[in-house]
Amino acid sequence: MHGLPESVVQLSASLRQLPGIGPRSAERIALFLVQAPESITQHLSKTMLAARQTVGICDECGGLTETQPCRICGDSDRDKALLCVVETPLDILSIERTGGFRGCYHVLGGKISPLNGVSAEDLRVKELAVRLRNTQIKELVIALPTDVEGDVTSEYLAQQFNNQEVRVSRIAHGIPVGSGLEYADELSLRKAIEGRRHILSAPN
Amino acid sequence: MHGLPESVVQLSASLRQLPGIGPRSAERIALFLVQAPESITQHLSKTMLAARQTVGICDECGGLTETQPCRICGDSDRDKALLCVVETPLDILSIERTGGFRGCYHVLGGKISPLNGVSAEDLRVKELAVRLRNTQIKELVIALPTDVEGDVTSEYLAQQFNNQEVRVSRIAHGIPVGSGLEYADELSLRKAIEGRRHILSAPN
Repeated sequence: MHGLPESVVQLSASLRQLPGIGPRSAERIALFLVQAPESITQHLSKTMLAARQTVGICDECGGLTETQPCRICGDSDRDKALLCVVETPLDILSIERTGGFRGCYHVLGGKISPLNGVSAEDLRVKELAVRLRNTQIKELVIALPTDVEGDVTSEYLAQQFNNQEVRVSRIAHGIPVGSGLEYADELSLRKAIEGRRHILSAPN
Repeated sequence: MHGLPESVVQLSASLRQLPGIGPRSAERIALFLVQAPESITQHLSKTMLAARQTVGICDECGGLTETQPCRICGDSDRDKALLCVVETPLDILSIERTGGFRGCYHVLGGKISPLNGVSAEDLRVKELAVRLRNTQIKELVIALPTDVEGDVTSEYLAQQFNNQEVRVSRIAHGIPVGSGLEYADELSLRKAIEGRRHILSAPN
């Protein structure tokens, strides 16, 4: 890339690591940053470091937080008997945006996937079992993606935790099959939460 | 945006200032940056500041550079008699990528636009006149965008500088009308440079 200053090339390469940023976008952003008023570049750099240092993982739910426990786990207005199981911290944000869920969350950190060598022990299943033991939880709402691994994991969690006290349900189809929660529109995701179904019929 | 840590919200807002980054992308990148290994975020932040501090404007051509003069102006293999006039430093990169131009550049820094109150005095036209006086330049290749303001500016430069010694030409249509150089593919842009036409017929 003749003519492009070396430090811009390096900045482009760094920017390409970001999600959704291709080579052209990276270069455009890099060129913007070296030509922008110095205060803009400095502010962005500072905000980035500050956010990285401040944000951690909630010991309780596994979501992103600046406090322990996180705002949701520490909110006494939240229904502690209703626990929504999601794959990643981002999924919490997607569900919060619908405004249709007043329970708490549990981040699994992945899905069971024998092909990728991910078993239940690699996920935050043990932590989930501890929460179910220590807290009076009535319903476990599984909001994992509707792909094969999501289905397998949901089935596994239902087998493990469905009993007389705890009902295990799964959010309704209504979000596109094979797509992640982060791409769903608020309304479909809200409908999906409202229409959740039991995975196993209640034992009698 | 309930559930999103405050520092992530702030980082998102900063990221939205970047070109081509909308609210969803900004949030996705912010969430990536707070969850990524600390070294990645630190490296990006550092590279950004370093690039901003190292990169300046070449006194000669007005392009981006880390040295004075820039690599192109300082390259003795370049044809000093052939000067290509572009709007922005980015346009130099677009033309360099075609590999089809061996002259030097002059960044105008904008286009004449009475509606936006931009006249020839606001652009690097004086600097261009100085270069034409001090250097033996045979041809001025105008590579401004093919919009109304680009046309007006090209016409103005031709009126000002076309004479017995200096021919003023303009790169051929072939790049989409109304579009900037940075979106053109290499081949069309190369063809456009090869097919450049004189704006005024040589005085006889």
